[in-house]
Amino acid sequence: MSEVRTLKVALLGCGNVGAQVARILIDDADALAARSGARLELSGIAVRTIDAPRDVELPRELFTTDADTLVKDADLVIELMGGIEPARSLILTAIQNGACVVTGNKALLAQDGPTLYEEADKAGVQLSYEAAVAGAIPILRPIRDSLSGDRITRVLGIVNGTTNFILDQMDTTGAQFSDALAEAQRLGYAEADPTADVEGHDAAAKAAILASLSFHTRFSLDDVYCEGITKVSAADIASAKEAGFVIKLLAIAEKIDSENGSGISVRVHPTLLPREHPLAAVRGAFNAVFIEAENAGELMFYGQGAGGTPTASAVLGDLVSAARRLVLGGPGRTETTTGHVPALAIDASNTSYYIGLDVADQAGVLARIAHIFAENGVSIEIMRQTIHRDSESNVESAELKIVTHRASEAALAATVEAVKGLDVINSVTSVLRVEGV
Amino acid sequence: MSEVRTLKVALLGCGNVGAQVARILIDDADALAARSGARLELSGIAVRTIDAPRDVELPRELFTTDADTLVKDADLVIELMGGIEPARSLILTAIQNGACVVTGNKALLAQDGPTLYEEADKAGVQLSYEAAVAGAIPILRPIRDSLSGDRITRVLGIVNGTTNFILDQMDTTGAQFSDALAEAQRLGYAEADPTADVEGHDAAAKAAILASLSFHTRFSLDDVYCEGITKVSAADIASAKEAGFVIKLLAIAEKIDSENGSGISVRVHPTLLPREHPLAAVRGAFNAVFIEAENAGELMFYGQGAGGTPTASAVLGDLVSAARRLVLGGPGRTETTTGHVPALAIDASNTSYYIGLDVADQAGVLARIAHIFAENGVSIEIMRQTIHRDSESNVESAELKIVTHRASEAALAATVEAVKGLDVINSVTSVLRVEGV
Repeated sequence: MSEVRTLKVALLGCGNVGAQVARILIDDADALAARSGARLELSGIAVRTIDAPRDVELPRELFTTDADTLVKDADLVIELMGGIEPARSLILTAIQNGACVVTGNKALLAQDGPTLYEEADKAGVQLSYEAAVAGAIPILRPIRDSLSGDRITRVLGIVNGTTNFILDQMDTTGAQFSDALAEAQRLGYAEADPTADVEGHDAAAKAAILASLSFHTRFSLDDVYCEGITKVSAADIASAKEAGFVIKLLAIAEKIDSENGSGISVRVHPTLLPREHPLAAVRGAFNAVFIEAENAGELMFYGQGAGGTPTASAVLGDLVSAARRLVLGGPGRTETTTGHVPALAIDASNTSYYIGLDVADQAGVLARIAHIFAENGVSIEIMRQTIHRDSESNVESAELKIVTHRASEAALAATVEAVKGLDVINSVTSVLRVEGV
Repeated sequence: MSEVRTLKVALLGCGNVGAQVARILIDDADALAARSGARLELSGIAVRTIDAPRDVELPRELFTTDADTLVKDADLVIELMGGIEPARSLILTAIQNGACVVTGNKALLAQDGPTLYEEADKAGVQLSYEAAVAGAIPILRPIRDSLSGDRITRVLGIVNGTTNFILDQMDTTGAQFSDALAEAQRLGYAEADPTADVEGHDAAAKAAILASLSFHTRFSLDDVYCEGITKVSAADIASAKEAGFVIKLLAIAEKIDSENGSGISVRVHPTLLPREHPLAAVRGAFNAVFIEAENAGELMFYGQGAGGTPTASAVLGDLVSAARRLVLGGPGRTETTTGHVPALAIDASNTSYYIGLDVADQAGVLARIAHIFAENGVSIEIMRQTIHRDSESNVESAELKIVTHRASEAALAATVEAVKGLDVINSVTSVLRVEGV
């Protein structure tokens, strides 16, 4: 056999995912060498505290607190520290030294990706980040490469397992948000401080990355409208269920061409989906990304969106691809960003809506409400009224559920405002966006 | 703007898919140039008959019957003629001339892929064939690249839309195979001669390609055990349905390590899947590939498996990737085949089985049958007996449904043979393999 080249791999961070990456690099060294065409030698693991407890037992001599020196001597750098600094500076150092970089740092990419992509382009090295979106699911490479001859028109993603677990629990058991969150925390699906997940920030970072790749334009977190799931009530879920829908937190990026603007709407919010939609079947902590493209039609990618070992699979896929490139030569171009489509504000987005109203049970109420919708240019697709009679007080109340055709966020807001002003309206119980109808 | 290079694209074949590829190359020229970094100029379309009717109107001057000359002058060759010759010779000519080749020819790849891959490796050109398996679904690139740092243990694919449509019809309406086939033919989902689809030959070619990429070893059609759906009866489907299963024609490639042999079992056969399995929800003519990998866990890729426009999307994704490579330099390595795992005969495969028996309603029958299973080393997971009474004759008969744990095909065959010999057995009504339990 001919002499096989050795590539030095520096690992930054040794948490949940990092520890598994280190384990696989050691245990599967032969298979990885066969795939890469080079031996991938783990030259060191940079951590803050050398003796911190870890999921996997690893040789103590690999650990160092001197990330800078480690990076400067590496052919391939895996950044799994998370956070902005020092991750950002270390990645830039690696790139400037001609190393290929693999990262799973969605927060950094969503905030300052453009700088990193440009530096990687200039240096001719590969910057890959499959692990940053939807864990183990190969989604970024298919978007970037397999769909490069097509035009993506819409991306809908369940990209946060914590919120999907919570919503799934609420849907299955009828639990309130707070109880479902507590259950998720108990089972390790939610962190002690769940803010980043339940407020949609994690999904928003992933939405920015998905939108950038899908529409060949660099979007950052600032371009993403973000609404979490903390206000979704058990009543919302029950009412949606009755109407044949399930509520999911979706990361959405879609091309919009309307009088309110042309560009890309990038947003994260609780969304009603028909129960027969492929995304509706994505249960528990699983992730999935649904893509609509002009020629390919509908595609879906499904798998584990988090967890040390699954996410390590994505990191290692990127690592082997980068190593192949180093061995065989050739450029490390990361993406094509020839489009410069504007990001649209949430007002210009264009979806169907689900509106729940608690109304007086009087003749003519439906007509008055329908009139307000029409005046504001919002077309009603389904209107369903249910009468409840309180057996004690004998008072009747009516619940009205409306699903609209696609309308602009602005028109819908004006409609809801006007409806609220009607004397026959007791309350607006839910206003939720709908996709997949 | 700097001068943009032009790459000459030769298209061989102008059927269903070819015509859409030509249309998109012309209509989307600017977007494709932006993605590729080069203008992709359709230099000609080789066909047998220039004036044949086609789905798309295309400039007449592009057509030629001289494929050989067209290929010799091209940077990129798209082969969509199908069949073995002259496709094979033209691809070899293209490779020897240093052109990158994109093909959707699963029959050719399954029969003589190894020769083509080797020639492409030697010439340092890219040979890509995403369109050959599961139409628009990006599945080959994720297996080859994204999962290159992982170990795939099993692939289960619904890779033939015609048979999935027929089985779905039978499941939904209770139709017999022949009626469902006629309906598929009426709707254009099945060809006048449906042999290649319903006998599983098309799926078998795709299974060979999936197995080769997943297990880094070159498998051909000869390595694939193949059983079609023509013998699946309405009764089989109804009986499976009652037990909570759906019947799908699956292309399966899995790693087996057992006393009957170690290697890869590559096979196509009707398979029972639990209704809650992600593949069970793949309806109509859609395709999906379900992958189990050591680290990534379960992944599924879903989309349109056929049709001119969707398949053209996959062809163009390959074309743009090949063009990028030509523009930016670098090698065209097609795959890594460092493994040399043997293909196993069907006897060594190892699955669960579903067995339907029409038995006499006598005391002790269950015990005698269970004894035979035990003797042959086949462990029973579920055994369910249903008693029917014919109201006219007042004769009772019993139906016995058995789902086994994983067992070897050989042990199962011996068991069924022995069961048939029992005097209390009227008939063996179904023997079907089960996955996903």
